[in-house]
Amino acid sequence: MGSLDRNPASFDAFAADAEGFQALNAEDVRSYLHKSVDFIYDYYKSVESLPVLPGVEPGYLRRLLQSAPPSAAAQFDIAIKEIRDAVVPGMTHWASPNFFAFFPATNSAAAIAGELIASAMNTVGFTWQANPAATEMEVLALDWLAQLLRLPESFMMMNRTGARGTGGGVILGTSATSEAMLVTLVAARDAALRRMGSNGVAGITRLAMYAADQTHSTFFKACRLTGFDPANIRSIPTGPETDYGLDPAKLLEMMKADVATGLMPTYVCATVGTTSSNAVDPVGAMADVAALFGAWVHVDAAYAGSACICPEFRHHLDGVERVDSISVSPHKWLMTCLDCTCLWVRDAHRLTDSLEISPEYLRNAVTDSGGVTDLKDMQVGVGRRFRGLKLWMVMRSGKMYLAHTVIGSKFVLRFAVGSSLQEERHVRSAWDLIGKTTTEIMEGKMRVQVCTDCSDMFLQILDLEE
Amino acid sequence: MGSLDRNPASFDAFAADAEGFQALNAEDVRSYLHKSVDFIYDYYKSVESLPVLPGVEPGYLRRLLQSAPPSAAAQFDIAIKEIRDAVVPGMTHWASPNFFAFFPATNSAAAIAGELIASAMNTVGFTWQANPAATEMEVLALDWLAQLLRLPESFMMMNRTGARGTGGGVILGTSATSEAMLVTLVAARDAALRRMGSNGVAGITRLAMYAADQTHSTFFKACRLTGFDPANIRSIPTGPETDYGLDPAKLLEMMKADVATGLMPTYVCATVGTTSSNAVDPVGAMADVAALFGAWVHVDAAYAGSACICPEFRHHLDGVERVDSISVSPHKWLMTCLDCTCLWVRDAHRLTDSLEISPEYLRNAVTDSGGVTDLKDMQVGVGRRFRGLKLWMVMRSGKMYLAHTVIGSKFVLRFAVGSSLQEERHVRSAWDLIGKTTTEIMEGKMRVQVCTDCSDMFLQILDLEE
Repeated sequence: MGSLDRNPASFDAFAADAEGFQALNAEDVRSYLHKSVDFIYDYYKSVESLPVLPGVEPGYLRRLLQSAPPSAAAQFDIAIKEIRDAVVPGMTHWASPNFFAFFPATNSAAAIAGELIASAMNTVGFTWQANPAATEMEVLALDWLAQLLRLPESFMMMNRTGARGTGGGVILGTSATSEAMLVTLVAARDAALRRMGSNGVAGITRLAMYAADQTHSTFFKACRLTGFDPANIRSIPTGPETDYGLDPAKLLEMMKADVATGLMPTYVCATVGTTSSNAVDPVGAMADVAALFGAWVHVDAAYAGSACICPEFRHHLDGVERVDSISVSPHKWLMTCLDCTCLWVRDAHRLTDSLEISPEYLRNAVTDSGGVTDLKDMQVGVGRRFRGLKLWMVMRSGKMYLAHTVIGSKFVLRFAVGSSLQEERHVRSAWDLIGKTTTEIMEGKMRVQVCTDCSDMFLQILDLEE
Repeated sequence: MGSLDRNPASFDAFAADAEGFQALNAEDVRSYLHKSVDFIYDYYKSVESLPVLPGVEPGYLRRLLQSAPPSAAAQFDIAIKEIRDAVVPGMTHWASPNFFAFFPATNSAAAIAGELIASAMNTVGFTWQANPAATEMEVLALDWLAQLLRLPESFMMMNRTGARGTGGGVILGTSATSEAMLVTLVAARDAALRRMGSNGVAGITRLAMYAADQTHSTFFKACRLTGFDPANIRSIPTGPETDYGLDPAKLLEMMKADVATGLMPTYVCATVGTTSSNAVDPVGAMADVAALFGAWVHVDAAYAGSACICPEFRHHLDGVERVDSISVSPHKWLMTCLDCTCLWVRDAHRLTDSLEISPEYLRNAVTDSGGVTDLKDMQVGVGRRFRGLKLWMVMRSGKMYLAHTVIGSKFVLRFAVGSSLQEERHVRSAWDLIGKTTTEIMEGKMRVQVCTDCSDMFLQILDLEE
């Protein structure tokens, strides 16, 4: 056995019971987890009464908890007590019904249960063989969600008759839609380089990418990560005349101008529900423009995509049958705890051609038969948890679908309604506060310290209360 | 409210109770989660008796579960029953003490509890302000682990006196070490382009990357993702004379040759515990060679890094004070359920310079003060769960550290010992089976169908038993 006693963080306390050590004792698991569930119940019952934004200073936690690793194992109850006393008071409570910032990170009992079971099973489903149930559950959950969104069958791994299609889906491990953009950018980049007959990546300086100026900043980051030339990343101006959605005429004009200077339009990102203003780009019209140049079209529907399950919002996805890929994040409006970003592509091979790696120790007969999809070939990394379970459980407890429908009330994003514990009274109360405060500011009755770097109305209001 | 009734996957059944819908009911949460805990307990008590590798065919799950989304919400008990009856029989049981394939995905009650609480809190800690406790807990857990590994203080966010250092750490959302490689490759790439005065990314074709041929395939994938020229990615041959570790003389020779042809050595990956053979590259010697060319050195200690907590293995990290970054995955040997890859960098700014994005809605006074680290700037994506909690809880229940020490017994990786439920008898039993089978094959008493694409001995043995 290895030893620990010469480590400066001394472990003398363990020497005595090291022989009887059992890493994962089922009785401990049951006991710890039941206690955790009761802690969570208490948290949910009290969260409404907690201040949404904590009044802590940077470094506060280290002053409350020990800064060096402990030399003896703590009782589980002590760790829970430290979470209650030190962690909870320093949290921004996204679960609070009084939270209206950023976006609603919705959640449900079914999703938490699915994540819990996945944590306990703790499998690594890089290939079908490494955990058949995990891969098949993920494919099934994605096909269910695709059906709810009425995505064309071309995006599904299995069509309704059970035959294997050319499409494919994957649940990515990141929140926001960053990884979905990254992997599709890579596929589009490599396809464009092949098309121009580039010598290695030499042609990368000629590739151009397009998105509206309301597009999530992670798009511009992903372009940089994948090696595109910053000078060729186009941010197309939008304005109130299109409700901040992209104007396809401007896109066409810009692409033509780029081609005239020797660039190759490679990738267009259309957003359904931008993060800062909830603008919607015209998916079909952008696909038509992009088709003139053979550019990849990705639809980032991370934020508002879930709403398109409702028939009256589905038109925002019109034309999706002509795009190459689409991503939706059920952890935003679809009651699924983080992380859960779903990506579908119309031609799975265009993605796996760029992302596939097959080291010897992962090769197996089932993969070589071509009869299964190894989800490692549709993501950045290799390993992956049992990601499909929680999403499947949310849909199996189908009631959850209804909650996202509050988007019909047209609140702007900076006042983001829809968190799982929110009721109408929380919204009304916050709205009254905003109205009252705004009136007092307008009437000059209140002096307000407005930081120009504090764009979040919610945060400003809290500052006023202090 | 939005409606669902015109969707082909009809939701008539919900119409009646839509008014009373509550997305996240604390009573439901408590009830579902307690049931899930009991399910997990039963699973752990029975997993040893289940076949490790399931005898299912591709597509099995869709035949057992409905292929279209349900039109009515199922009772939670029904979902659990479907998991028990349909999911469990199709799983490769990584948690089984009879599992010796790939690598041990170790786990602990504390880690599962930490992940559970994080799922319920469901916060998105992109910035310090978006959840101070989550950011501070992650920094604290990383600093604790850095102390246990005796990493130099230059890698820590806070030194032992509590002052802010130049280093930094982040827990990444991917398993394997893929994202750690990707983000450090981007930082190294951008630094090299700046150093050579490249016009945009034009110089990217001149950058060269180096690793031993035993390096995880995800390194070569990450190089491709980040836009490097495949022709410049060097895989340096190793052999038994160095126990498959990299020979620094060969590295020097190859770098010199590349410089002679106009290339710029940019990134060197040293591995402590390669995935296929558990080889260890000489960290210090590689850092010395790389320094001659100003190349970034990353230590991928995802697999065996945890063992370096033990003093007798710590020498494998000798020289780490001269590298730029190091990653360790506690979800392998450190009893922390997936995903949990820790990355430390010596100069955090070299990473954040390439990865930082600050859209208006994320700007805030605390970030602008420079007094905090926004972890979004050290990863691919923007959003992130409360990642530090489970790792902190594992260390707070400090007993867990002991389990990785079985590496001293020198099993080769293809027979990977160390899963959380494993005891000596499981290893002995499997070893006896391997010995018996091998003998019978050698004596010609048994005809074995050995697939050349089945490199995993564990899988072969199961095939023989059928």
